[in-house]
Amino acid sequence: MRLRINLKRFYYLLDNWGIGMKFVKSRENNTLKHIHKLVKQKKYREKSGQFVAEGLRICQDILLSDTKIDIFLCSEKFYTKNIELSERLECKSAESIVIPDSIFSVLSDTKTPQGVLLVLKTLDKKDYLDKIESGGKFILLENVQNPENVSTVLRTAEAFAIDGVFISKDSCDVYSPKVVRGSMGAIFRVPFYLIDSPARFIKDTYNNYGRSFAACLTDEAKSVNDADFSGNCLVAIGNEANGLTPAAVKSCNEQIIIPMKGKIDSLNAGVAASIILWEMSDNE
Amino acid sequence: MRLRINLKRFYYLLDNWGIGMKFVKSRENNTLKHIHKLVKQKKYREKSGQFVAEGLRICQDILLSDTKIDIFLCSEKFYTKNIELSERLECKSAESIVIPDSIFSVLSDTKTPQGVLLVLKTLDKKDYLDKIESGGKFILLENVQNPENVSTVLRTAEAFAIDGVFISKDSCDVYSPKVVRGSMGAIFRVPFYLIDSPARFIKDTYNNYGRSFAACLTDEAKSVNDADFSGNCLVAIGNEANGLTPAAVKSCNEQIIIPMKGKIDSLNAGVAASIILWEMSDNE
Repeated sequence: MRLRINLKRFYYLLDNWGIGMKFVKSRENNTLKHIHKLVKQKKYREKSGQFVAEGLRICQDILLSDTKIDIFLCSEKFYTKNIELSERLECKSAESIVIPDSIFSVLSDTKTPQGVLLVLKTLDKKDYLDKIESGGKFILLENVQNPENVSTVLRTAEAFAIDGVFISKDSCDVYSPKVVRGSMGAIFRVPFYLIDSPARFIKDTYNNYGRSFAACLTDEAKSVNDADFSGNCLVAIGNEANGLTPAAVKSCNEQIIIPMKGKIDSLNAGVAASIILWEMSDNE
Repeated sequence: MRLRINLKRFYYLLDNWGIGMKFVKSRENNTLKHIHKLVKQKKYREKSGQFVAEGLRICQDILLSDTKIDIFLCSEKFYTKNIELSERLECKSAESIVIPDSIFSVLSDTKTPQGVLLVLKTLDKKDYLDKIESGGKFILLENVQNPENVSTVLRTAEAFAIDGVFISKDSCDVYSPKVVRGSMGAIFRVPFYLIDSPARFIKDTYNNYGRSFAACLTDEAKSVNDADFSGNCLVAIGNEANGLTPAAVKSCNEQIIIPMKGKIDSLNAGVAASIILWEMSDNE
């Protein structure tokens, strides 16, 4: 038999026993407006240095990490069904809010919301110099526009223990709900860096520390099978339709290609990147 | 300056000059009802032996192939913008229909329809014996549920010139609009076969012609790096959450695994399959 809870009494108890959950009923609440903008607007995310991660799985990932939570927001239904989990999230959160299910649906980026989301501080690291100095395998994405491709690269980079991912700022926003969700938590575990100009970064910085490879479809490109990924290296991958910019290709030490037998565009960009990540890790 | 066309006069001309386009204005038209069911219902597709392929790109793919078109259907807007292409499609089609843009949106499976779809006969081949007798590299999908994973496998199989794809009938329908669109035309170029029981097919049939590999996460599985894919071979890949059935694993000669350093579920199923396809082709 399911326990029926008198919600009114329940919130009265919450308020009066000092448990840190706040109940918000109005869509006009400023924190909810803030969250709504974080979900919808890239610029607002950049300005506030925060983003929204939604869903049960992400909560579990967060509890296993040392990431602090700025706001923990859930629906009434989620709260009453997941009291213990909610308490654990609340302990890690600066602010914790319960809202009616109907308002949660409006805030959510998914069709069938699970009733929980977190506001977190952006995760990209600023200082990459220490990282590349200490060596390893890196991947760089230039102007990659499809959120699925970015999240696939983060996931695969984690699977193959790639040391870091560089993402150009003109790529699709890594903090967009689709990338955050699609990365299956890899976004919390793989170090990544947002950079302005891949060409300049590779030429002026990276090449002092390791070999750089441009993935491209030129005649000079050698098969990824023949590339030497031993030692410190970075592979740069470009836009889905246009590939890397000529400047980025030029900045790299070598050009590589995945030999294909079908039509030229027959490999999905996320798959192509994943095969390169596999080959990089393969040779360690 | 854009040429304005008097549509009434235009269709009058079509009707009277005997060009084979028919103009249908009513949603109650039987052919449109038929197409609507083909888009929506797997069972209806199976019963009628037809499916719907939507979009400009697919039309271009079809024109390069020798596939016959059962019905070519387009919106008024598409027709007036693509007269020459429409004529070429019409020549290959048993029936050709123009409908108002508003009705096209209802039939379409996409949010922003391009205004063109084709009804085609199902493409799966029935006789695989000749194919496996003549040898090559094959992939088999058992109970793969995500349309994106099925379309990724078809696309990657084309890129790496895999000889055929076997798909269990309990997998997601290869003729669903998402798989057809996502395969980027590979569905027309890669031979594929629908089979009832992968375990029985591998044990009773395939193993007489080549080596079979089960992709799985068991302790006995050897790294895909160490697998010998030279000669005739088939790799079986299972459901996203549960992998291959024990019977399918048992039917295979060997078990292989992609060694991962991150969390076990960190590789997307389409990516894992693609890396295996790459390794298979790699050793040719």
